Amino acid sequence: MKRVWLREVVSLKLSKEDIERVDREGLYKDYEAWPEQAESVLRVSIDLREVNVDKVVYCGMGGSGCAGDILQDLSFTRPKFPPLYVVKGYHLPSFADESTLVLTVSYSGDTEETISAFKEALEKRCKVVGFSSGGELEKICVENKVPHVKLGRALTPRSALPYILYSALSALERLGYELVSTTELSNTIALMRKLRETIGVASEPKDNEAKQIAHHLYNAYPIIYGPQEFRGVLTRFKNSLNENAKVHALVEILPEACHNDIEAWQPDAFSLRVLFAINGSDGRMRKRFDTLMELVERSGVEYRSIYVKEDTLFESIVKLLYLLEYTTLYLAVLRGVPPAPTPNIALLKKRLSGD
Amino acid sequence: MKRVWLREVVSLKLSKEDIERVDREGLYKDYEAWPEQAESVLRVSIDLREVNVDKVVYCGMGGSGCAGDILQDLSFTRPKFPPLYVVKGYHLPSFADESTLVLTVSYSGDTEETISAFKEALEKRCKVVGFSSGGELEKICVENKVPHVKLGRALTPRSALPYILYSALSALERLGYELVSTTELSNTIALMRKLRETIGVASEPKDNEAKQIAHHLYNAYPIIYGPQEFRGVLTRFKNSLNENAKVHALVEILPEACHNDIEAWQPDAFSLRVLFAINGSDGRMRKRFDTLMELVERSGVEYRSIYVKEDTLFESIVKLLYLLEYTTLYLAVLRGVPPAPTPNIALLKKRLSGD
Repeated sequence: MKRVWLREVVSLKLSKEDIERVDREGLYKDYEAWPEQAESVLRVSIDLREVNVDKVVYCGMGGSGCAGDILQDLSFTRPKFPPLYVVKGYHLPSFADESTLVLTVSYSGDTEETISAFKEALEKRCKVVGFSSGGELEKICVENKVPHVKLGRALTPRSALPYILYSALSALERLGYELVSTTELSNTIALMRKLRETIGVASEPKDNEAKQIAHHLYNAYPIIYGPQEFRGVLTRFKNSLNENAKVHALVEILPEACHNDIEAWQPDAFSLRVLFAINGSDGRMRKRFDTLMELVERSGVEYRSIYVKEDTLFESIVKLLYLLEYTTLYLAVLRGVPPAPTPNIALLKKRLSGD
Repeated sequence: MKRVWLREVVSLKLSKEDIERVDREGLYKDYEAWPEQAESVLRVSIDLREVNVDKVVYCGMGGSGCAGDILQDLSFTRPKFPPLYVVKGYHLPSFADESTLVLTVSYSGDTEETISAFKEALEKRCKVVGFSSGGELEKICVENKVPHVKLGRALTPRSALPYILYSALSALERLGYELVSTTELSNTIALMRKLRETIGVASEPKDNEAKQIAHHLYNAYPIIYGPQEFRGVLTRFKNSLNENAKVHALVEILPEACHNDIEAWQPDAFSLRVLFAINGSDGRMRKRFDTLMELVERSGVEYRSIYVKEDTLFESIVKLLYLLEYTTLYLAVLRGVPPAPTPNIALLKKRLSGD
């Protein structure tokens, strides 16, 4: 197969001025405020009482949904935590019943899939909690005497992730299903603050890992590999690559990718760039990553690795989350696309409303 | 961004001779025998007794794992079916306990992740069943007096899917957790037989949808869109594109993709080809598919759609599964790569064994 691939040299320095020129709406300011977003959630007391359930379902789409993926990754490691499902659609799984806790999360409050799932949860007499910054969901929570957690304001649902994630974690703790301790929650706020000094908009590319990764992923299709416990955070990265930087991206999770995707590394790979997110893996997982790197290299494709190993899984997740989120913002700037507007989603909503 | 993309004209007719020239190991013969594989499973009585559980976990990697994804899609629509999780890794979720049914499936019987999960399941006193064609898993089932279901022989785990899928479904029925009725199982065998006449190796490209889709996906990165209920079958398609045709592929599920991936359809999309798998969707889902098609078209990327709407979800799944599996075989032939050998996976196993 013949292919020609011309890589344009990017001269952009990703200075604050470069960023402000492309990010006209100032989405970057929301990201700069993530530690303060998280902190504000922890200062508010959430009025919820303990429940007794044997299943948890988290319903949310897009930016509101990805907190659920992260909760699921955390739940797998938490002793005796009930099965936690994430629903990204209109309907609850058939098992949902009166001993199921259903967290319905819609940042805007008007997501039609989540409103539909909320109504099903009421019909099935599940124990429901609503999370939104307002909208229809807040209204129907009040009407149905369902507890509602109010989320703080940001420019977009995706840039409001700490409001969503920390609110969900705090609510779960109040409901008797703690996934992460209060100390850990506070630790991650300090961690984000420290990280911001090096990956934030003011930091120079030579010291800024997020700016470097954005350059690495520029002008190619990103393929991201990581371990099972980073599935949620890497799915979130994919989503933000889609929405901020406007590129498709492929996430493959190890060890499963070693049974299928790995076989696609052939000499004719092209227009790809790879990112590995590696935790403090044990020997067998490390060998899998190493072999995959060897195969990528043989194919002539460039790759880069991020090693994350904090004291707890949640701290590792938050570190990776913040680093990769900044990366998507910088990639948008390199590509010259404003990260805040999502015109295709806007068009879809217009079509759905019958226009 | 400047990009040049030269599409090579494919003159291959995908005749039986073309297929045999590339598929030297004759993997296609396994696919031709899928109806008979399924039928042979239904003729064997599986010696299992009813159990009483409130969670089901399916453990399996690659070709052995994807039957679990399909079971999960089916379970969501089955009244009162307990939460069903699919584990593709070394460890069980923390919730696994004595009231959890754990199906451990390894076609070879020697998959290290599944063996690890099996041992955890014994420690946690779960109700375990093993499925393999032999190997270590059969051995440790016998040693630990765990019921074992023997799978029939095929060239590769992926080409043995009916052995795995129909055995798992039959076993679940014996265990008291029926997902698909016996009539439906029989219906799908007839359905595969009929389908084989048009999508099998002997059928001409002009009448053969699988050969046509392979031509459509040739020399590009496939992006596949489908609804939630086809998630398992489309993930399987991705895996077989990886293993048989040796290409990376991206699966995006609607409506979730409408909240993120959709935004990546920009005028600079390139080297992509899209496939939509559409069920008999209601109005809102159909509008989502239509808008996505409009955006793909605007980007100048070619797309093709498959419409599947059989009487039951399982019949739709089996139809799509068989059609897409043949597609991956034909795409391998077009690319001139033998579909049966998986040299990268073989290299990985060598590295893991310390070589």
